[in-house]
Amino acid sequence: MRGVFLHAPGDIRVEHRPDPTIVEPTDAIIRLSATCVCGSDLWPYRGIETVDGPAPMGHEYVGIVEAVGPAVTTIKPGQFVIGSFFASDNTCEICRAGYQTSCLHRELIGAIGTQAELARIPLADGTLVATPDVPPDDLIPSFLAASDVLGTGWFGAVAAEVGPGKTVAVVGDGAVGLLGVMAAKRLGAERIIVMSRHAPRQKLALEFGATDIIEERGDEGAARIKDLTNGLGAHSVIEAVGTRESMMQAVHATRPGGHIGYVGVTHGELPGDQLFFSHTHLHGGPAPVRRFLPELIDLIWNGEIDPGKVFDLTLPLDEAAEGYRAMDERRAIKTLLRP
Amino acid sequence: MRGVFLHAPGDIRVEHRPDPTIVEPTDAIIRLSATCVCGSDLWPYRGIETVDGPAPMGHEYVGIVEAVGPAVTTIKPGQFVIGSFFASDNTCEICRAGYQTSCLHRELIGAIGTQAELARIPLADGTLVATPDVPPDDLIPSFLAASDVLGTGWFGAVAAEVGPGKTVAVVGDGAVGLLGVMAAKRLGAERIIVMSRHAPRQKLALEFGATDIIEERGDEGAARIKDLTNGLGAHSVIEAVGTRESMMQAVHATRPGGHIGYVGVTHGELPGDQLFFSHTHLHGGPAPVRRFLPELIDLIWNGEIDPGKVFDLTLPLDEAAEGYRAMDERRAIKTLLRP
Repeated sequence: MRGVFLHAPGDIRVEHRPDPTIVEPTDAIIRLSATCVCGSDLWPYRGIETVDGPAPMGHEYVGIVEAVGPAVTTIKPGQFVIGSFFASDNTCEICRAGYQTSCLHRELIGAIGTQAELARIPLADGTLVATPDVPPDDLIPSFLAASDVLGTGWFGAVAAEVGPGKTVAVVGDGAVGLLGVMAAKRLGAERIIVMSRHAPRQKLALEFGATDIIEERGDEGAARIKDLTNGLGAHSVIEAVGTRESMMQAVHATRPGGHIGYVGVTHGELPGDQLFFSHTHLHGGPAPVRRFLPELIDLIWNGEIDPGKVFDLTLPLDEAAEGYRAMDERRAIKTLLRP
Repeated sequence: MRGVFLHAPGDIRVEHRPDPTIVEPTDAIIRLSATCVCGSDLWPYRGIETVDGPAPMGHEYVGIVEAVGPAVTTIKPGQFVIGSFFASDNTCEICRAGYQTSCLHRELIGAIGTQAELARIPLADGTLVATPDVPPDDLIPSFLAASDVLGTGWFGAVAAEVGPGKTVAVVGDGAVGLLGVMAAKRLGAERIIVMSRHAPRQKLALEFGATDIIEERGDEGAARIKDLTNGLGAHSVIEAVGTRESMMQAVHATRPGGHIGYVGVTHGELPGDQLFFSHTHLHGGPAPVRRFLPELIDLIWNGEIDPGKVFDLTLPLDEAAEGYRAMDERRAIKTLLRP
């Protein structure tokens, strides 16, 4: 089969690799209906994270089950399934508490690489969720979004304790930030302030439910949010970037006692005293997308949300390199790849 | 009157200073029944925080009201009162949300200095809480503890979401950590693990409700807590030190999805990626002691808790320098000063 590899920063290639096979009795093999490039794939692409290339890429996936191992009981060949970027047993105490991305038996899907024609998914029963039926083609982008960016934005909103009557600020206008807006809207937020300087992203944010757009960044951006909230700051802030600057922007935009949901993979060091005196609640980490999948699948299946709109570029898998470039240069919000 | 000043690291002196007077119509003047030395006073004493000496010291206080300004309506001369280390109006939106130490009109009591015979307390109606009557002498240490260390330990436990059935770990065996144990016990924790190497503190921890004592520190200490919790980590961790090492010990001792209440004034930088991947909830900051004062005063007045036991050294105000030395050298847990 063909699969995407990162050889070195900026060097994406589509190459032949062996078809995956069942290794563990709990595995499933899926044929990808669609896959995509994640904002977090840009960290190694840009050389900010070390690359030990050639590394298989991709951790977002939807597809049709081709085969399952002998211990798999709930997932069956022919089903259309969605999973998250960590395989999880969904039965351990940590999973049952809703933190499947910290499952005691978790396996990183990114190490397998789902930007490919086929993928081996470990712990299939705990990881994969099937749709009620094989969906029509036009729903595939939305289900693919549920595999990571929608679930991650959703977790950001839940971690930030978004709820009715609250003012929410969103730091980051990538797919996760934009879908954080969608989640905040669904969770009943009264006001949703998005930080963005990019017209197409601003437009999508407004479509997803944003009430205010702020173009300022850093301390200035945080000050603007205070201006809009009687000098207090937002009740809930979703941080969807992961730099020190964006984290501190989130911290300074939150009122004392408010909540930050941080879902951008945090890089660098954070000043302890500023966290301490901010009086905020901080919660986040790798989103336990599996927790939200059943609900998100329902919402998409019933046409209540359309998160697939974050894909503004669709390419065949063979053109993955252009898909990365377009996102790196911010020409595309998110690239969908058709194997 | 006499008051304590820090001239330079290690240089504590008791000197004459003018009696305080009513400055704002919302002020009260109290005559200190007792005051004390705080763990956080040791940061400048040790030169870890810059001292611009001579600086008046002390922010913990109980005493009898001598005079009130014309705008004070609920606090009256003759009452025995307790307040916290930030004066607060207790009416703004942030106070009403329970974060009085981030009150929009807060004033730092430490800048006034309560290691003295008299003190001016701003925003008296919002800051001070009176006991039902002037208490007997033997209750004074417990009420003094409520002014900071008890309220801070309590906030640590509440921020760490301590509750029935939970396993709680406490990092730090100073007065705040020990009273965090007391709070955890009162809040229904099933198991309370305390990290301490110091026999008298271990004894007090056990008396306050600790079920396990761990002598290991850092990564080893965190690993021991994982051992005691089926490899998962504690549900709730109270961090009562404030160094990078102690914070990361708390982070690594908490299970994914668990809660850290951090109340040691955080110094230095924290690694963003480790916070992110820990999947913990982080909440803390300067404890809004005022939120808890009415409840804590009731518990003490009714003899249900005896937090005054953390004072294992009582000295006249004039011997404040020895009080600081004893705490610095860990000969005393906490020093009470009698003006």
